[in-house]
Amino acid sequence: MTTLIFGHQNPDTDAVTSAMSFAEYQRQLGNTDVEAVALGEMNPETQYALDYFKHATPRVVKTVANETDTVMLVDHNEFQQSVADIKDVTIAAVVDHHRIANFETAAPLFYRAEPIGSSNSVIYEMFQEKGFTISPQLAGLMASGIISDTLLLKSPTTTDVERKILPELAKIAGIDLQEYGLAMLKAGTNLAAKSDLEIVEGDAKSFDMGGQAVRIGQVNVVDLNEVYARQAAIEDTMKSEAEKNGYDTFLLIATDILNSDSTGFLFGKNQDKLEQAFGAKFDADHRLALPGVVSRKKQVVPPLQAAFEA
Amino acid sequence: MTTLIFGHQNPDTDAVTSAMSFAEYQRQLGNTDVEAVALGEMNPETQYALDYFKHATPRVVKTVANETDTVMLVDHNEFQQSVADIKDVTIAAVVDHHRIANFETAAPLFYRAEPIGSSNSVIYEMFQEKGFTISPQLAGLMASGIISDTLLLKSPTTTDVERKILPELAKIAGIDLQEYGLAMLKAGTNLAAKSDLEIVEGDAKSFDMGGQAVRIGQVNVVDLNEVYARQAAIEDTMKSEAEKNGYDTFLLIATDILNSDSTGFLFGKNQDKLEQAFGAKFDADHRLALPGVVSRKKQVVPPLQAAFEA
Repeated sequence: MTTLIFGHQNPDTDAVTSAMSFAEYQRQLGNTDVEAVALGEMNPETQYALDYFKHATPRVVKTVANETDTVMLVDHNEFQQSVADIKDVTIAAVVDHHRIANFETAAPLFYRAEPIGSSNSVIYEMFQEKGFTISPQLAGLMASGIISDTLLLKSPTTTDVERKILPELAKIAGIDLQEYGLAMLKAGTNLAAKSDLEIVEGDAKSFDMGGQAVRIGQVNVVDLNEVYARQAAIEDTMKSEAEKNGYDTFLLIATDILNSDSTGFLFGKNQDKLEQAFGAKFDADHRLALPGVVSRKKQVVPPLQAAFEA
Repeated sequence: MTTLIFGHQNPDTDAVTSAMSFAEYQRQLGNTDVEAVALGEMNPETQYALDYFKHATPRVVKTVANETDTVMLVDHNEFQQSVADIKDVTIAAVVDHHRIANFETAAPLFYRAEPIGSSNSVIYEMFQEKGFTISPQLAGLMASGIISDTLLLKSPTTTDVERKILPELAKIAGIDLQEYGLAMLKAGTNLAAKSDLEIVEGDAKSFDMGGQAVRIGQVNVVDLNEVYARQAAIEDTMKSEAEKNGYDTFLLIATDILNSDSTGFLFGKNQDKLEQAFGAKFDADHRLALPGVVSRKKQVVPPLQAAFEA
């Protein structure tokens, strides 16, 4: 049976392309019966990268146990961010760069995580350790994942590893890093092309924080005013999603990728915990200014976790 | 503050020596403020290895938050097998070769696990990837960990990795693998020198299986009759340990390392689940014959887990 390799739900560019790069790594290891798939449709940024490097869109799956008994996870480990029937299959391998939580296996497995900027960074190191080759197409896709996760090396999630390897990948791919990177990021920020639901849920992840079901969405923009103009409709959508799925707290972070600032929007409980976490108050328009915040993983989840578990 | 590096409670040779080898790996990475410690006293096998290679016995700690805020785990990840106050410190790194369960962090970390024979095997690969050097003394200690976990390459936990690297380490260490390996394993099987409590608890680990607290001990012997002669006292000890610590089920595996067979002893509930897991019945002497079973990780935990969760 074919081993399926996939990133998290609501796949972003690093989730999609690290499944592809880890699949290629497996093939060069000799495990040829692997397929990179995705747990949701491509967002516009990812589609831009796939089109640019002329790579087919991966197959989208909603369950896996109906077609395989073995999977490999990239760019996530928490079960609530994975495929719905993850507990019904064997997880043979994980490559990730997130915290570990709500994850367990019955048997030993391959697990490789590093506290660096993207899953593709980890996979690039693995290619180098084995002396495996990376095609120009794959290098472009891996670079796209790193650009996306680090906002072209501007996010605080960026490490020396990305500063070193992203130019190497760009060279193999034959792209101008600044030009391609900005074009790809901007392709993901076209708010006019996104429904309210896509803005709210397009990149959202679920977390268990001190027993509360916390949903955190993030949308990249080049002008926060475009989000403010749709705030009422966005809050209505957060409300209906929270009620439908049982979220206690829904936080949406709109991130200005040019100025590296964010604004937070909230539906649900625990406003006090959010304000405590960020040391700031929601204003009269019910917006929470988050200057300098661009990384959910590094600047949003840890302070929230601490506030919820205090 | 010094980062403490340690293996699991009831440390065995791989737990102790992989803390030492990972500490040396960190030093060669440039993290010089690290100390390999242990969560319990050395067993006779480990003491034999330390004496043979003239290495000091590591400091034993019962808690860590009183002296550091950062730790690294080797040869385990499950919190109930780790230091008592593990939740009060930051786990910066894990190197392991077990399943992952009851483990979580608030932040991204370095995690490296592979489904191979010992933690020292994983660390040896990491030394090779970086081109780091291994002293004869450290090579001997790493070889001892691999010999212990694989029963000198005879356990089914052995993989091609150990078959390749153990002779390499023996060469660096300047030892005859068969001669040293058997001497070290036999040093750990001197039942006459062990109290009933050391037999029962010396290598025991706790597991949550389907909501039941399952304790599984293992003792290596060269003659199972020595265990049978002390069965009544051993069962009394299992009973008192189970009652004191709230174990639902206490299973002790006595393993004949020369013939690669084991016998199981039980105190507590779930006899039906044990018999179902191994497809065998306890005999009139309340012994469970486990022919060919030598590995708790590979041949005991997975079938038990399946039986308890069925």
